[in-house]
Amino acid sequence: MLELGRRDAERIYVGKKRSEHTVPQEQINQLLARLAKEGKRVVRLKGGDPFIFGRGGEEISTLMEEGIAFQVVPGITAASGCSAYAGIPLTHRDYSQSVVFATGHLKDNSVNLNWSSLIQPQQTIVFYMGLIGLKVICQQLINHGLTPATPIAIIQQGTTPNQKVLIATLETMPVICDESNIQPPTLIIVGEVVTLHNKLAWFQGEGRH
Amino acid sequence: MLELGRRDAERIYVGKKRSEHTVPQEQINQLLARLAKEGKRVVRLKGGDPFIFGRGGEEISTLMEEGIAFQVVPGITAASGCSAYAGIPLTHRDYSQSVVFATGHLKDNSVNLNWSSLIQPQQTIVFYMGLIGLKVICQQLINHGLTPATPIAIIQQGTTPNQKVLIATLETMPVICDESNIQPPTLIIVGEVVTLHNKLAWFQGEGRH
Repeated sequence: MLELGRRDAERIYVGKKRSEHTVPQEQINQLLARLAKEGKRVVRLKGGDPFIFGRGGEEISTLMEEGIAFQVVPGITAASGCSAYAGIPLTHRDYSQSVVFATGHLKDNSVNLNWSSLIQPQQTIVFYMGLIGLKVICQQLINHGLTPATPIAIIQQGTTPNQKVLIATLETMPVICDESNIQPPTLIIVGEVVTLHNKLAWFQGEGRH
Repeated sequence: MLELGRRDAERIYVGKKRSEHTVPQEQINQLLARLAKEGKRVVRLKGGDPFIFGRGGEEISTLMEEGIAFQVVPGITAASGCSAYAGIPLTHRDYSQSVVFATGHLKDNSVNLNWSSLIQPQQTIVFYMGLIGLKVICQQLINHGLTPATPIAIIQQGTTPNQKVLIATLETMPVICDESNIQPPTLIIVGEVVTLHNKLAWFQGEGRH
């Protein structure tokens, strides 16, 4: 995407890695407003979709308050990108009639979710940013009623040549993941649709197992 | 998208309108396989994302069985497109920590969902194809514990010039919708994030109220 930009465009990196926010969100909001007020044409480029765990609402809220005109371009959210490239449909007539997106990562590295609500028959669960909370996620889903044999997938750097897909069960995944060298960013998918990976995987990242 | 295709490409319409499937799903699966086996290069173009209520899993399952090579390109799912163009973030730090996608439309025009599971504090609910079941959806969400004042949005033909956004509450929407002439396709969003529309709406479809 960056290659499509003007060669002489000023580029400001505000990217986020886990626990390493180059520029705090509030400063990003203000930066967008300030640059626009200087008469510049500003593109805020994000990975994924701005309105699904993307803080886009906060950014355009600032723009609205400052009276700055803008457009929002929707994007391929990580769940869709990883789902497509891992061959794991998020819904499927035979396995899943709904899908829920949750985030597995809190500021203090804990995970605080309404576990019972996530667990529904024929519902796929997607965790964004779940790697650090993986053990808690697997244990809590079992504690709240999912069978330990429930299939789970971890997708590392989905859609890229470094994509790697680990398939296991809620019971076995914490150990299997420990023994791999899976690196963030990752996406976690839990549910029967994960079993389709064995049949439908079509993309082989260089790092594929 | 069609304009990007080869001018001499054969085009076969297999589109779906509610209760009016031009070509049944099983025939679409077989058609993809047959045309590929004839040596043709086939694009199956869909609205939205193929793996979120898109039957993509069934289509590539047939291709796998027939030994046909393919790629899956993820897409902007209706929830993301409508969310962006209606100015309604699906997640927001202050309002929503998770989002669930469900389909409101069953073959027999009834709606059969696990209502309790959809209703969670700080969770946005998105219904695909929910217009025909709107009354049932509003009533059941109230019956299962959501306050009648819970905000709900119906987005008609989101992202297009015909986009129209209705904002109301679970209690008032059925009447308000009846009095409008909202047409499918629609997407329904339920939750506190809907209140952000008044502040964040930036796109004015010609049909906007």
